[in-house]
Amino acid sequence: MTRETASRPAAPRRRRADAERNVTAIVEAALDGILAGEEVTMAALARAVGVSRVTLYSHFPTREALLDAVTDRAVTDARDIARELRLDDGPAREALARMVGSQWQTLSRYRDLYAVAVAELPPARLRALHAPLFGSVKKLITRGQAEGDFRTDLPRDWLLATVYALMHQAAEEVNAGRLSARRAGDTVTETILSALRTP
Amino acid sequence: MTRETASRPAAPRRRRADAERNVTAIVEAALDGILAGEEVTMAALARAVGVSRVTLYSHFPTREALLDAVTDRAVTDARDIARELRLDDGPAREALARMVGSQWQTLSRYRDLYAVAVAELPPARLRALHAPLFGSVKKLITRGQAEGDFRTDLPRDWLLATVYALMHQAAEEVNAGRLSARRAGDTVTETILSALRTP
Repeated sequence: MTRETASRPAAPRRRRADAERNVTAIVEAALDGILAGEEVTMAALARAVGVSRVTLYSHFPTREALLDAVTDRAVTDARDIARELRLDDGPAREALARMVGSQWQTLSRYRDLYAVAVAELPPARLRALHAPLFGSVKKLITRGQAEGDFRTDLPRDWLLATVYALMHQAAEEVNAGRLSARRAGDTVTETILSALRTP
Repeated sequence: MTRETASRPAAPRRRRADAERNVTAIVEAALDGILAGEEVTMAALARAVGVSRVTLYSHFPTREALLDAVTDRAVTDARDIARELRLDDGPAREALARMVGSQWQTLSRYRDLYAVAVAELPPARLRALHAPLFGSVKKLITRGQAEGDFRTDLPRDWLLATVYALMHQAAEEVNAGRLSARRAGDTVTETILSALRTP
């Protein structure tokens, strides 16, 4: 049925709803596949979701477009988790500790996706996708500086980079068996707070 | 006469010397190519060095074997630079500051090689190749702990990971234009010393 012959009022809306469900199913299947360490090809993905390759390519013309959507989805998940931490409550140093204690685990869970995204998405785009997360941490750093707990002698963007570099490294060390998963949260939190503390 | 057809009686020793020169030339050309951002294929490399593909493959049967040798060469260069810093002299915290101030630049220079090595060498092998460098930093951390300057409340391997994660991040930030190359050395040194300092 072509658009011109869609005579009943409900049809366009239903097609949009179908398309949205397809996009969600494709992104979720791709994310699951990457996190399971599978090589996610467009053909295998179409089969897994039960859509035609034409439908898949109509939503995601390239593998990069798909990976972009998958990364965006993972960042949204991480932001939803971060929201529950009530980062605006209490001293910024305590809120940052809550954030780090929670987010390094999220990073750890999405580690395989991150490796694929780093290899296949342009760095500027990868950073833009992470902007919501970086924004909330930068806000915390700024608040901690105003409260006198965080240093002001180093560039704020560098302090932000320090937080993420150490969280990524903690995930890496746990994955390689060099740091116990049980100790990792406290260890990386303590290291980050030491690096950011007013000297 | 090509390098690989040396056939006269004095040959064995000369063949070995020729082979060593070939290996050195191949590794240097591959390193230069990678650092120049080129896609280094085995065919292009054989042409660049002026050896046959048979000779190239006799020394490096796989791209991974070649990349292993190139990484080993880069680590050896970095270790030679580190040796001149006289890391055994003076307080460990000052020696670590000299080390970080120098090595983040080396890391920055070898950044493209590191990206290729991370993508193509097994993580355990990449780590083994870096063992000489990690060893000298770990020795410094141990000495700084004995001198009372460095913390003993966190695992030593994690402190080592912190040093390297922050040096890599500094190289990354400079490369992305978010940290000035002029400030980067002092910034990363100060951050690392704060993270390692006895609380």
